[in-house]
This record gives sequence, structure tokens and C-alpha cells, in this order.
Amino acid sequence: MSARRAFAGVDVGGTKIRAGLVDGEGRILWRQTVDTPVRRDPETVADLVVELLDRGMADLGLPPDGLAAVGVGVTGPVDRERGVALLSPNFGWREVPFARLVRDRLPGAPHVCLDNDVYMVAYGEWQYGAGRGSDHLAVVTVGTGVGMALILDGRPYHGGRGAAGEIGHTVVEPGGPPCGCGNRGCLEQLASGTALAREAARLGISGPDGSPPTARDVAAAAEAGDPHARDALARAARALAVGLAAVINALDPQRVVVGGGLSRAGPWYWQPLVDAVAAGVMPTHRHAYRLVPAVLGDDAGILGAAWRAREEARG
Amino acid sequence: MSARRAFAGVDVGGTKIRAGLVDGEGRILWRQTVDTPVRRDPETVADLVVELLDRGMADLGLPPDGLAAVGVGVTGPVDRERGVALLSPNFGWREVPFARLVRDRLPGAPHVCLDNDVYMVAYGEWQYGAGRGSDHLAVVTVGTGVGMALILDGRPYHGGRGAAGEIGHTVVEPGGPPCGCGNRGCLEQLASGTALAREAARLGISGPDGSPPTARDVAAAAEAGDPHARDALARAARALAVGLAAVINALDPQRVVVGGGLSRAGPWYWQPLVDAVAAGVMPTHRHAYRLVPAVLGDDAGILGAAWRAREEARG
Repeated sequence: MSARRAFAGVDVGGTKIRAGLVDGEGRILWRQTVDTPVRRDPETVADLVVELLDRGMADLGLPPDGLAAVGVGVTGPVDRERGVALLSPNFGWREVPFARLVRDRLPGAPHVCLDNDVYMVAYGEWQYGAGRGSDHLAVVTVGTGVGMALILDGRPYHGGRGAAGEIGHTVVEPGGPPCGCGNRGCLEQLASGTALAREAARLGISGPDGSPPTARDVAAAAEAGDPHARDALARAARALAVGLAAVINALDPQRVVVGGGLSRAGPWYWQPLVDAVAAGVMPTHRHAYRLVPAVLGDDAGILGAAWRAREEARG
Repeated sequence: MSARRAFAGVDVGGTKIRAGLVDGEGRILWRQTVDTPVRRDPETVADLVVELLDRGMADLGLPPDGLAAVGVGVTGPVDRERGVALLSPNFGWREVPFARLVRDRLPGAPHVCLDNDVYMVAYGEWQYGAGRGSDHLAVVTVGTGVGMALILDGRPYHGGRGAAGEIGHTVVEPGGPPCGCGNRGCLEQLASGTALAREAARLGISGPDGSPPTARDVAAAAEAGDPHARDALARAARALAVGLAAVINALDPQRVVVGGGLSRAGPWYWQPLVDAVAAGVMPTHRHAYRLVPAVLGDDAGILGAAWRAREEARG
């Protein structure tokens, strides 16, 4: 591989930072995951990202200035033109020019692009995973929150201010549980992994050694026959299905990819989801879409960010 | 005006057929509306459309072969490439090559394009009306049914199979009233003019001389102080708002245009709609969109169809 042909993809998440180096064909050459630091000021996080990428280049025996382009995914809305993170509540960031902070720290100052983390995951699944070959695609991630990214007419769709995809904040239960967004009864409050874990704790399901349960623990309990766990998974699935059916009716996508922790919660989640989406869409739409789980797992955000950076760098 | 510079726009609706002749700048030169005939086989309707256009050309003193292009809007999904009406339940049409039927009847066989009637209305409002200058636009029509058309990233968005926009069939009341689509509790069953009229009749509101009430009668009763009428309008508005808020969260449009009969039902409808949409969207989206009534009335479908035909003809 010639110098300056490695692309970097970084996923700056609320709990983990994942960095990877990717070749021009979308193969991951190197990857590393670290905990998101407690100190989350933009400079500290930018330092850490650059440290990770330096380490990767060294591990691969590539020169420190050999990065062709870098893509970084962050939580919350993003000004893609200016590379600015507009609002990342779990980092306390507001109007942070994170692309510049990273670029200024990298030897050779390669192009650095910034995007929303759900969009980076969507680019990954679209180019290399469960969304391949689809021109009309919704990618929904169900983890701590519920996010969506749209590929429409063969290209990313970001909306008027770049804030499209907020499916998690559709109000599905007026007056329901309060949401961080300021409303009540948002889809996210019923369908996210966080909501499922809360519900599971209420039902007496616990994690290993009595720790608070995760979606994985609920899935394991369901698999082992716990009717409460099965019921909790089915209810989370049905809540998500309300949002997915509305998206399918409105956008007529060819494919809907569901990723994030809950997409791996097994058949006691997936089957009610499939059934409820089919029941919720217009009958004429029922056989027109494919609902599929994401396939790239944690690599999706790395691959998508590196792909996006490469696309932008070649202009 | 030179020969072959008149464009025709036709709106083939369930109760009326509206035809217009339009110049290259989007001025309506001539228009006429007739009742949709009882006999609705495709040939009869195509004969009627051509008869209307012939009459218009004669009235304007233009030669019969002077039509540059013709756009026709029909109910239901459409194959735009082939000019085929896929399914128009209130006409009993299935796979009708209506563009060809019209073209074969016109002297000079001009280009005839076919599209869904809600999309034709949306093109009209986008190019000449309340959606002007917007690149990210949802146009929702609330009449007999509830339809939506999307302009995204500065161009019409039709979806994977051309069936995008079915906001009216979002299930908002599981197990609710049965809908023609085959599901129950669709938005259309709570928010359409038909639903409002049904609700008004139940509340004892009647039309002139005791006839069944229309949305207009309900609006008049509300204006005159009838609390039941005000309540019925507010409930129809709030049901629509659920769908509009979901669309705004998901697509981040710059503008949402509401047309159709109910959009003219006055402040007792419009104010609850504005309030409920604002309450339903994410707080960060609240000041990012404009919700506006359509301004072209029945001309929207004519202007939009003529515009679309002109665009396609100049290919």
C-alpha cells in the first residue's frame, strides 16, 4: 500500500471511542477501542483520537503523515460543511469545531470530515453491510437512544438544517415518561435499550451478580423462558415498529436496517418487530420493503466514517 | 404566443375533473372544471380529458395540435416512467396506461406525463405557491383522504417503488375504525375531511337544509360559536399533527404546506394544528420549520401538472 492511502474512521461515542484504519476497498487494517475519558472537553478528546490514530499508523508501519483522510462520527447534530458538532449533550459540547481540532493535531493536516454517529453507521451498512445495493434505505440504531439515518435516491439525506432522522423523538405516548429532548412519551422512552433495561429492572430481571440488567440480560432471560423478559422485549419491539411503519409508509424505502444493541437481542425481540411492522404498514407496502438486522456490528461506524472521508477527500 | 407553447395540466379527481392551459411562465390562460362522469372506464375519461383540452385550445384561438406537453394527475400510485395508473380504487382502475390513452387521442401526440394527484398539487405549490423557494418541503393534502408529497434536496422524492407519501395510513389508533387500505385506526380515519364530516354528523351538526355536513359546515358552526364543532375541528387537527410532527422529526423539512379542503377550515382548525405540531416535534426542531396553508387552491393541481409536463418535455 502506498503512503497516504490509509483512511481513518473514528466513532466518538458516549461510552467508547472506536478508531480504525481502513484501506481504499473498505478493509479494516487496524482497529482499537478505548473508554471515553471522564474529561470530555474537546481538546482532550481530540488529543485521544489523534493518539489512537498515531498508534495505528505505527502498528501498521506507516508514516505518521500517511493518512489520506479521516472521518469522525459524534453524537448529536452536526454542521457537515464546517465540521462543527452543534450539540452533544453527553459531552457537554455546543458548537465545537471538532474536525479542525483533529486536523490541526495530525501531521500533514489531512481532510477531516465530521458527521453524526448514526449517519456514519448508516454509511458503513450501506456501502459494506446490510444496506448494500439499496438506493432507498433507512438505518435505525437502537441502543442508549433510537436514531435514524436516511439514504434516499442513492445519496445521504440530511434535511433542511442537517437534522433529519430524529425518529426517537416521535411522541407515541402523550403525557408519557419525560425525555431528555424536553417532550414526554417519545419513542425512545419506550423502545431504546435504556427503556428496556429500566422495564426489566422493574420486572425483577437482573444482570450478572445482581447488577442492573442490560438488553443482553433481558434477551438471555427470554431465551431461558422468562415470560416477563419475553413480554418486555415484545413491547420494546412493538414501540419501535410504530416508528418504522410510519417511515415505511412515508418514504417507501427498499430496505430498513436495524442496528445497535437491541438488534442483537434475538428472536424474542426480532419476531415481534417483524410482525408489528408488517401489521403497521399499509397493506400495499407490506411486501415492498425488507427489514433486516445490521451485520457489521461495531465496525459499521469505523467503515462508514472512513468511506465518507474518502468520498469527501476525492471531492 | 407561438404555436406548441401551451402546456396543459389536468387533475382527474374522484368528484371533479379540472383542466387548464398554462403558458411557459406558469400563468393559467384557460381553465374548466366538470363533474367526473359516472362511467369511469379509462377510455371514457380519456375522451373527456381530450374534449376539455380541445375546447380550451379553441377558446384561446390556438391550433388543435398546439399543445407542447400535457400533465395528468390521478388518484393512487403511478408508474411515472411508463405513464401507468397502478391502482385507483375510486375509478376501479388497475394498471391503466392512461398517459398513452390521452396522447393517442391528441393531434400531434404531444408528451403526456402521469403522476399522483397529490404530487401534482405539491409541484404547483412548490413552483408557484406556498412552497416557493424551499428545497425541503412536505405538502400534505387533507380532503377526502390525507395524502403527502415530498420535495427533498430540491427535487421530488418518490421512494423505492414510487409509493412514498402515505402519511394517511399511519396507524394512530390501533384497533380503531377500519380503513379502505385494509388496516384499522389509520390517521386518515381521524384527520380527513371525511372523518370530520362523520364526526360532525354524530354531533348533530348538519349542512344547508339538513344535508350531511361538510368540513365547511363544521367550520361555519365553529365560527358561530358551536363548542362541538370547535372540538371536532381541534381533534381532527391534533390527529393530523401526530403525523406532521413525525415527518418533521424524521425529515427536517424547511416548510410544511397543508392543502385540501380542511386547510381552509379557518382558525378553529388551524390554531390547534399549529399548536399540536409545535408540541409534537422535538424542541430543537420547533423553530426550524414553517407550517403554512396552501395558497393556490384548486389551481395547484393544474399548475403542477403543467409544470411537470414542461420539465419532462424539455427532458
